[in-house]
Amino acid sequence: MNNLKEEALKFHKEHEGKIALKSKVSVKTREDLGLAYTPGVAEPCLEINRDYNTLYDYTSKGNYVAVVTNGSAVLGLGNIGAAAGLPVMEGKSILFKTFAGVDAFPICVDSKDPDKIVETVKLIESTFGGINLEDIKAPECFEIEDKLKKVCNIPVFHDDQHGTAVVTLAAMINALKIVNKKFEDLKVIINGAGAAGTAIAKLLVSRGVKNIIVCDRKGAISKDRENLSAAKKDLAEVTNPSMIKGALKDVLKEADVFIGVSAPGVITPEMIKTMAKDPLIFAMANPKPEIYPDEAKAAGAKVVGTGRSDFPNQINNVLAFPGIFRGALDVRASKINEEMKIAAACAIADIITEKELNEDYVIPDAFDSRIAPKVAYYVAKAAIESGVARRTDITPEMVEEHTKKLVQS
Amino acid sequence: MNNLKEEALKFHKEHEGKIALKSKVSVKTREDLGLAYTPGVAEPCLEINRDYNTLYDYTSKGNYVAVVTNGSAVLGLGNIGAAAGLPVMEGKSILFKTFAGVDAFPICVDSKDPDKIVETVKLIESTFGGINLEDIKAPECFEIEDKLKKVCNIPVFHDDQHGTAVVTLAAMINALKIVNKKFEDLKVIINGAGAAGTAIAKLLVSRGVKNIIVCDRKGAISKDRENLSAAKKDLAEVTNPSMIKGALKDVLKEADVFIGVSAPGVITPEMIKTMAKDPLIFAMANPKPEIYPDEAKAAGAKVVGTGRSDFPNQINNVLAFPGIFRGALDVRASKINEEMKIAAACAIADIITEKELNEDYVIPDAFDSRIAPKVAYYVAKAAIESGVARRTDITPEMVEEHTKKLVQS
Repeated sequence: MNNLKEEALKFHKEHEGKIALKSKVSVKTREDLGLAYTPGVAEPCLEINRDYNTLYDYTSKGNYVAVVTNGSAVLGLGNIGAAAGLPVMEGKSILFKTFAGVDAFPICVDSKDPDKIVETVKLIESTFGGINLEDIKAPECFEIEDKLKKVCNIPVFHDDQHGTAVVTLAAMINALKIVNKKFEDLKVIINGAGAAGTAIAKLLVSRGVKNIIVCDRKGAISKDRENLSAAKKDLAEVTNPSMIKGALKDVLKEADVFIGVSAPGVITPEMIKTMAKDPLIFAMANPKPEIYPDEAKAAGAKVVGTGRSDFPNQINNVLAFPGIFRGALDVRASKINEEMKIAAACAIADIITEKELNEDYVIPDAFDSRIAPKVAYYVAKAAIESGVARRTDITPEMVEEHTKKLVQS
Repeated sequence: MNNLKEEALKFHKEHEGKIALKSKVSVKTREDLGLAYTPGVAEPCLEINRDYNTLYDYTSKGNYVAVVTNGSAVLGLGNIGAAAGLPVMEGKSILFKTFAGVDAFPICVDSKDPDKIVETVKLIESTFGGINLEDIKAPECFEIEDKLKKVCNIPVFHDDQHGTAVVTLAAMINALKIVNKKFEDLKVIINGAGAAGTAIAKLLVSRGVKNIIVCDRKGAISKDRENLSAAKKDLAEVTNPSMIKGALKDVLKEADVFIGVSAPGVITPEMIKTMAKDPLIFAMANPKPEIYPDEAKAAGAKVVGTGRSDFPNQINNVLAFPGIFRGALDVRASKINEEMKIAAACAIADIITEKELNEDYVIPDAFDSRIAPKVAYYVAKAAIESGVARRTDITPEMVEEHTKKLVQS
C-alpha cells in the first residue's frame, strides 16, 4: 500500500497532472491565424448567433463533457472538497478520452449548496455536450441531478448512480443465465441507500424486478417507515411492495441476489446460507468488500462480484460511462433515459458469449476494446427508438464505426 | 470576403471546433488504471486535502487558463451572447497552446450580471492557474476584473484591455526610437474610452507619460466633466491633468501620438497635419482603421500601426498574452501587475534590433518564435523582482528555456 502511495504520487507529479489541451487545427501561418481567429472566426460566431444549433457544427461542444463535482463524496474519502477532488476528475476525463474518444474537462464547484451548483453548471453549459456528475454526496446528488436535468438542454448523468447501476445490471443479466432465473421472479436485497444503491434499485425496477428491498443502517426501507428523507421516500414508492420490516439479516432470507454498496463485513457466510438456492452476491464496498469472494462461495454463493480488479467479476464503471456518453453525444440525445441505460447493460453483458460465460466471468474486462463501440451502438439505438435523439442522420452502425475509430486511435 | 466566410466556416466545421482533450498519461494496462484512477488517485487527493498548494504538483491546474467570456463584446460583433462567443474562446485557447504551451479552456458564462460572472468563476477556480477575461463589454469588464482580482488566488487578466495595451506600448517604445522622443515629453491622444483605451491610458501613465487625453464620443474626458461613469471618473483622475475640453480635432493639435481604439474615419489627414512633428498614428479599429496607413503617411505620419495583418506594424495581442501567462504561470505569480506588463512590452520591442528597426517594422511578426520565450523571461523576472512570484526555485532563464521547448514542440 505504501508502494502504491509512492507510485501514485510519482505518477501524478511526473507531468503535473493528467490533462492538457490539444488543438484540432494547425496554426502555423498568417492564413491559419486568420481562419482560426480574427477575422475568420467571426463567421461561425455569427452563424451560431443566428442558429444556436450550429454550435455543434462549428465548436467542440458536441464532443465535450463536463466532469462536475463539489468534492463532497470523493471515492471512499468523503467530503474532501472541490479542489482535492480534481485528481479524480482529471482521471475521469482521461478515461472518457481513452475508452471512447470523448473530450472531457473537470469542473470542480466549490460549494455545498445544490442550487449554487446547478446555477454554476447551467451558466457555463454552452461549452459542453453533456454533464457527468461525479463524487457528489447523497442526498444532494439527487436534487442536483434532477434540477440540472430540468434546466439543461444536454444529457446529465450522475455516474456514481447510473454508471454503477448499469454495470451491476450487466453482471446480473449474465449471472442469471448461469443460475437460470428471471428478473421478474427475483427477490433482490440492496444494502446501502446512497447514490449507487438508489440508482441500482430504480434501474432494476425499470428492468422488471418486482421484489426489491433496500436496507440502510436502520434496516429495510418501506414507505410506512418514519422519518424517511425525501430521496428514501421516493425509493420506498417503487420498492418493498409488501412493506417488509427488519434488519438486513432478516430480509435477506430466501433472497436470490444481494447487492452491497455499503461497508465491509455487513454480510456473513451464515446470512448467505439463509438465501435462496444459487444466490448471487455483489459485494461492492471498496477497497474492502461486504464479504470476500472465497468466503461467499464457501457459503454457497454461485456468482460473486466486487469492485476490485484483483478478484473475478469486477463491477467497474469504466465499462459503461465512456460508451454511454459516446452513443448519447453522437446522436445528440437530449437525455440519457432508462431505455438507454438498460441498453448499455445489455451491450456489456452481450460481450461475453454463451460459451465463454462462467461463474468467474459474467462481466468483461475493462480493456476489452469491443465494449465501448457496442455500448455506444446500443445506446444510440435506444436513444433513437425512445425518441430522444436529436440527430436523425446518424444510424447506430455509424456510431459503432465512429467509436471503433476513436478507440483505436 | 465571401471567400473568407466560406473558408472560415469550412475550417471550423471540418473537425467540429478547434479544441480537444489530450491525456498526458497512458492508460493501457490495469496497473495504469490503478494509478490514474482508483485506487491510486486517492493519494494525490489526500495530499491536496492536507496541503492546497500541492494541487500544483499533482494536477494540471498550474498550466491551465480559463478563457472567460459572457459574449457581450465579441470581436467587433457586439453582444452576441456567451454561446456565440465560443469559437473565439476556442481560438484563444489554441493560440495559448500554440504560442506558449499554455493549456486553456473556454468558460462561456451566460449572464450579463457582473456579480454572477465573478461568483461563477470563483466557484470553479480550483481547476485553473490563471483567468483570461475576453470579449466582455465595458464598463462591466472593469468591475468583473477588479472583483475577480480581489477574490481569486490566481492571476486575472482581461486581454482586451491589457494585452492590447502591452502591444501598443511595445510599438511605441520602438517608434519613439525612430522619432527620437521620450515618453515623459509626449502628448498622447487616445480616442475611445472602452476596455482597450482605458487600459492603454493607464499603462502609459505607469510608463511615465504625463500628458494623455482620452476622448470618447463627447470629446475629451476630464475630471470636471459632468455625468462621467465610474470607470471614466477613475480614468480622468490619472489623465488630462490640465482638464482640457474639446472635440478630438481640437485636442489633437500638437499631439505626438494618436491612438485610436474607436471607429473608422474619425481622424482625417487634415487633423494629422495639425499634430506635432513626426506624429505616430496607431489606428486600431478593426477591420476598418480610423485612417488608412497611406493616407496617414501622406499627411505626415512617421509611423502608422493598425490591427490588420495586411499592413505593416500590426498591433496583435497574440504577441503578448501567451508569453505573459507563460511567465506568470511558471513562477506561479499571484497577479499580473504593471511591472510585468511593462516588462512584456519591453520584451516584444527588444525583438527588433536597432539595425532592423524602421518605420514599417516597429513590432515583430506574430510568428516570430523568439517572442514568447523572451516575453516569458521578462515577465517572470518582473514578477520575481516585484515580489508576486510564489515560486522561488525558478529563474527567468529556466522560464525562457521551458518556453522555448514548449514553442518548438
